Amino acid sequence: MNQDYIQPNEWSIIEEGFDAERVKSSESLFSIGNGAMGQRANFEETYTGETFQGSYIAGVYYPDKTRVGWWKNGYPEYFAKVLNAPNWIGIKVFVNGLELDLATCKKVSGFRRELNMKEGWYKRSYSAVLDNNAEVQVNITRFLSLDLDEVGAISFDISLENMDGEVTFFPYLDSGITNEDSNWDDKFWNTTHVFSEGNRAFIEAHTMKTHFKTCTFMQATLDYMGTSISGNLDVSKDNFVSLKFSQHIKKGEHLKLTKFGGYTVSRNHPEDTLLNAANDVLDRASNIGFENLLEKQKQAWAGIWEMSDINILGDVKAQQGIRFNIFQLNQTYLGTDSRLNIGPKGFTGEKYGGSTYWDTEAYCIPFYMATKDELVARKLLKYRYNHLEKAIENAEKLGFTNGAALYPMVTMNGEECHNEWEITFEEIHRNGAIAFAIYNYYRYTGDYSYIPEMGLEVLIGIARFWHQRANFSGYRNKYVILGVTGPNEYENNVNNNWYTNYLAQWCIQFTLEQLAKVAEGYPEDYERVIGKTKLSSTECESWKKVADAMYFPYSEEYGVYLQQDGFLDKDLIKVADLDRTERPINQKWSWDRILRSPYIKQADVLQGFYFFEDRFTLEELEKHFDFYEPFTVHESSLSPCVHSIQAAKLGRMEQAYTFYLRTSRLDLDDYNKEVEEGLHITSMAGTWMSIVEGFGGMRIVNDGLSFDPRIPWQWEGYSFKVNFRNRIIKVIVSSGELTFELNGDHGMSILVRGNEYELLPKAPLKIH
Amino acid sequence: MNQDYIQPNEWSIIEEGFDAERVKSSESLFSIGNGAMGQRANFEETYTGETFQGSYIAGVYYPDKTRVGWWKNGYPEYFAKVLNAPNWIGIKVFVNGLELDLATCKKVSGFRRELNMKEGWYKRSYSAVLDNNAEVQVNITRFLSLDLDEVGAISFDISLENMDGEVTFFPYLDSGITNEDSNWDDKFWNTTHVFSEGNRAFIEAHTMKTHFKTCTFMQATLDYMGTSISGNLDVSKDNFVSLKFSQHIKKGEHLKLTKFGGYTVSRNHPEDTLLNAANDVLDRASNIGFENLLEKQKQAWAGIWEMSDINILGDVKAQQGIRFNIFQLNQTYLGTDSRLNIGPKGFTGEKYGGSTYWDTEAYCIPFYMATKDELVARKLLKYRYNHLEKAIENAEKLGFTNGAALYPMVTMNGEECHNEWEITFEEIHRNGAIAFAIYNYYRYTGDYSYIPEMGLEVLIGIARFWHQRANFSGYRNKYVILGVTGPNEYENNVNNNWYTNYLAQWCIQFTLEQLAKVAEGYPEDYERVIGKTKLSSTECESWKKVADAMYFPYSEEYGVYLQQDGFLDKDLIKVADLDRTERPINQKWSWDRILRSPYIKQADVLQGFYFFEDRFTLEELEKHFDFYEPFTVHESSLSPCVHSIQAAKLGRMEQAYTFYLRTSRLDLDDYNKEVEEGLHITSMAGTWMSIVEGFGGMRIVNDGLSFDPRIPWQWEGYSFKVNFRNRIIKVIVSSGELTFELNGDHGMSILVRGNEYELLPKAPLKIH
Repeated sequence: MNQDYIQPNEWSIIEEGFDAERVKSSESLFSIGNGAMGQRANFEETYTGETFQGSYIAGVYYPDKTRVGWWKNGYPEYFAKVLNAPNWIGIKVFVNGLELDLATCKKVSGFRRELNMKEGWYKRSYSAVLDNNAEVQVNITRFLSLDLDEVGAISFDISLENMDGEVTFFPYLDSGITNEDSNWDDKFWNTTHVFSEGNRAFIEAHTMKTHFKTCTFMQATLDYMGTSISGNLDVSKDNFVSLKFSQHIKKGEHLKLTKFGGYTVSRNHPEDTLLNAANDVLDRASNIGFENLLEKQKQAWAGIWEMSDINILGDVKAQQGIRFNIFQLNQTYLGTDSRLNIGPKGFTGEKYGGSTYWDTEAYCIPFYMATKDELVARKLLKYRYNHLEKAIENAEKLGFTNGAALYPMVTMNGEECHNEWEITFEEIHRNGAIAFAIYNYYRYTGDYSYIPEMGLEVLIGIARFWHQRANFSGYRNKYVILGVTGPNEYENNVNNNWYTNYLAQWCIQFTLEQLAKVAEGYPEDYERVIGKTKLSSTECESWKKVADAMYFPYSEEYGVYLQQDGFLDKDLIKVADLDRTERPINQKWSWDRILRSPYIKQADVLQGFYFFEDRFTLEELEKHFDFYEPFTVHESSLSPCVHSIQAAKLGRMEQAYTFYLRTSRLDLDDYNKEVEEGLHITSMAGTWMSIVEGFGGMRIVNDGLSFDPRIPWQWEGYSFKVNFRNRIIKVIVSSGELTFELNGDHGMSILVRGNEYELLPKAPLKIH
Repeated sequence: MNQDYIQPNEWSIIEEGFDAERVKSSESLFSIGNGAMGQRANFEETYTGETFQGSYIAGVYYPDKTRVGWWKNGYPEYFAKVLNAPNWIGIKVFVNGLELDLATCKKVSGFRRELNMKEGWYKRSYSAVLDNNAEVQVNITRFLSLDLDEVGAISFDISLENMDGEVTFFPYLDSGITNEDSNWDDKFWNTTHVFSEGNRAFIEAHTMKTHFKTCTFMQATLDYMGTSISGNLDVSKDNFVSLKFSQHIKKGEHLKLTKFGGYTVSRNHPEDTLLNAANDVLDRASNIGFENLLEKQKQAWAGIWEMSDINILGDVKAQQGIRFNIFQLNQTYLGTDSRLNIGPKGFTGEKYGGSTYWDTEAYCIPFYMATKDELVARKLLKYRYNHLEKAIENAEKLGFTNGAALYPMVTMNGEECHNEWEITFEEIHRNGAIAFAIYNYYRYTGDYSYIPEMGLEVLIGIARFWHQRANFSGYRNKYVILGVTGPNEYENNVNNNWYTNYLAQWCIQFTLEQLAKVAEGYPEDYERVIGKTKLSSTECESWKKVADAMYFPYSEEYGVYLQQDGFLDKDLIKVADLDRTERPINQKWSWDRILRSPYIKQADVLQGFYFFEDRFTLEELEKHFDFYEPFTVHESSLSPCVHSIQAAKLGRMEQAYTFYLRTSRLDLDDYNKEVEEGLHITSMAGTWMSIVEGFGGMRIVNDGLSFDPRIPWQWEGYSFKVNFRNRIIKVIVSSGELTFELNGDHGMSILVRGNEYELLPKAPLKIH
């Protein structure tokens, strides 16, 4: 049974009723972020029940010592880890001397959380009866400002329902925090300065080793019946500072503590100005005021939704799912900083220690290309360009030479952050996804400039890697790629994974094509790149030899490419014929049993058919889909979306819809029983793709947009917008009618179900 | 450059000159043991330089929490670990108030260690000048008694060479010890009682979790010019107790501290009698006295050598090597306790956390069968019988059912002690070695009784495992075994490892044969076993189906069985063509590069040809040897011996001799640059095999002994003895002549180079 406590609602995530068992799940689901920082939905007031505390600053990491049972040569000794940052949200609350704590009070009622996705705020309210019989009513609103992205704001309103009493607030900062996933119980933060001034307090701390300097700050004001009540310093010690505000109130009266807090960081300010910067941003926030800042928040989110919303009619859960996905993606990454990327858990948890996976290139870039300015996707590409030197070093550690580049499987700063040999050393297809994204970016945006300026160097490093990684098999008289892990991580150390071999061949071919194109069209860039990489025509010829004679495992019997050598040796029992109690196999089965089974964690051969669909016929897709999908257990969050797109393409709408629901409500319904650890951010972009590319059938054909919309019978209609080369196209699909609207100055032609139409500004195109 | 500081000597291991860099190596090489306990050659007196402290009690282990970077389903949560035990050898020595410490004194000269293998004692002597200019001459003798196997004895003799002075001894016990390989810095020992009485002291401590209770004890006496000087209690605290003996001596006079110490353990005594037992054994030791106990030690070792010595003429290093191997094997395991087994590092280090590997069955049992009473080998077999229930549980954890048994890769108590998935879950050929040992035991000793009494149950569990582990490949119309690691651990997760498939087939066939034989000859045992295992004839038939249709990868082109599917896809560059600087590849190469290379760590296909040589022709052996050996890097201690035996069989004596030297002096010359961590005990049995089976050509043919002796040109001659079915046969080989002597009451026939001879008691058979 999946989780089902989240109330269906088109624009909000709502939880009603307090259940201590759900606290950690809700802390994930109600997470907030603004691209520069983010935090789990931990309580402001003390909560002594089970909780997973997390507040994260974009780009602030720590090099943790690698932990492993048995060391393998090539593992990184240290790797960057997402870091839990000092807590600025904390507010201890005492009523008549007794601390408010939902884990210990007599009674909690009317507990409600709402994450309003339309407007970008999070609200929590409840009544509680404390052990001293005081009954409190609490309403808390919190948001992380998109306008002032170093600031978060909290409004904490309390009233006493059954007596008069003394209410005391202790708003605090705490840098004595830890990471749950710390390998060696190392101290990650070193606090250097704890300081308060009036109603403000500051903690300066830096990360050990990486020396990111931060100033965590807060300002608190207390309002009683329209009067501001002043507070004073309570405690200032090692890594903790709190203020104290106290007021006697009558039954029914309200007290409201407003707290601004956040971080200034040496990534963005000169080191010695962090305290000043903190005071400045607090000045700006208090000048604007809580209500006005919240108003600006609503406007900012309105702007985001204007471009990226997907509207679904007649299916509230599907609607809530897709909006949750789009909302979380935007909370995680807004494309303002090319030093940042999209972590699989965003700002919602620690797991997966590093930040960037191939998810970004394979899943996220299409979303950001279509819902933001093209500069955003270009920044994501530049991120990899900036890490090229480290990718070359990474390849050297594994024995590659001559500028071959192997991008890490997981990274925050270009260094490898993972150490399972079968992943770190073998899941090398990631290198191909990075090259594919370069192609995809150009295909979609039409902006070729990235390739001569930066992309070509990346492509050369990647082509060099594939050239060296393949070896000639005298037995087959072909080049083979041995010892890899494909996207399906339920196979390790296999030979000739079709997807990997295909990508390797494609990468070399694509690089050779771009070399010719840049030589022709951008001779200065060409000279620079050739000079820097010392690439010779002899080397290119030997690349070509490998690509031309690449081996692809194929079954004549089934007429399909084989996932890898030996796949047909397996006991080919379909997933549908497995006992339900055996699943999910990653929880029920030992690892060796999974490995020798035919079961596929996520699209592998089909991932290749997704990337390169133009190169295969619909019949070929169908054959491969029918062969592989029945063995696929979809135990990766990245699996259902690709299958949903392909099922839609094959006209199997029932299946496409099921996959869609699974991907869009993965976290809301907690399919994988792990939402407590955080959300699956990157797969959310896959959800977007499954509507736009799957149901909408959007493709790039001959430099233009093409659509082939379909609609699940469960829906009355749906609509989405895409930004294509600085034109905004809105697509409205209902069961009887298609409408296309163009927002721009110039008309354009589009393909719909293979027919060309001219789409003009302010003239909706209707097709029946 | 290999290590070469050990002096060549036929019967002793000798180090001359003090070098702090060599201390840890020598601590391993000069280790002593008596089967019940053992210890590294740590100094008695304080040494503040780099050292690796280790004292170990047979069968006393601790369940350490598993450490791993990324958990895989099926890993044991805890596993038994070899435990460093309280230190009883310590003696602090002060001269005129200054402590003797070779790491800090002004000068050390005449430093000499000798491990006398013939007589079983270890001696260390030196002169040292302390910072106070006192020059001391020190002579220390230490041994662990074979007669009283709970007791060790130390004689510490000191004289002042250049002045009169006060010498103070503080003999002590210390239970505040740690393991270097502790995963979580857990405390392994809990000390409950520290106690002294006269010249004796005791520490009672138990291991955490496993609750092995121990009493570590000592007794010290000081002799000055024939007079006993009494001491008194110095310190008694938490986990430490020391006595104090002081005496003023004149220049040139000697003082001798005699210390008995050791452990009584709840494995061997009722828990509440450990202190009494300690006093008892100290009474017995002191009644016998140091000199007499040493005399008994010499006699006991003479008895061991009488049966197991191998004499080599004309090659001191080869002689020293084989005796070191035989000596260490006997220090580690004497066959007195079926709860014990032979750890790869014996009592010489911590690494490899557990104790028992397949090394015992594949390498050690032949040595113990031929050099001890057959009961010793039977005890080693019984050890596995006692662990059958745990092997069944282990298989269940991995998803096997119906009493299938998978013996652990590494164990101390039947539980798995290793957690690399590619080893723990996949190196399943170990199960076959356990069945092979049952066959080998019967073949050699002629004692069938083990099979009906115990072995048949083990065989059924193992056959059930193979039956379930194989799956039918529709593609090949054969049974395949997917996802395994063979003996060559430089390949992981391969399909159809020939050795594994061959063993699996053989195990099933052998089990079916034994079922028939037991049914026929031991009907009561048969009934009992069938009742217990609920084995049906239907089940046996389905086993047979798997064995009959087992798939074996084979290359028509090379005429060889392939190590695994896909082996020929590799870049087949021979080891000889690799640059020397690339080796050893396990230090120079990343793990992924090793995996996709063709290089073989230790005999894999050739291990099968070793076990089952009767089933292959000499031509087949030659073809496979010539195909695989050139790709073999011999980076496992278990590799050279098998290749030495096969090279000898093929008449390639130069190669056989090179392999022999490498295996016999692996630790003495530190080929693998890791002797500091301990010795390679189990591979030492392989050294023995490479002489007896390799050069001596000993085999069992038709229930009798067969020899085909060859001699390396570097040797003048060699001789060995074997116990074959309670007859002792001595084989003396020189370049011109073979001599066979029989020690027994009845004659027997033997085969020599294919010809049958009658060997009679007291009538040496000479063959020219």
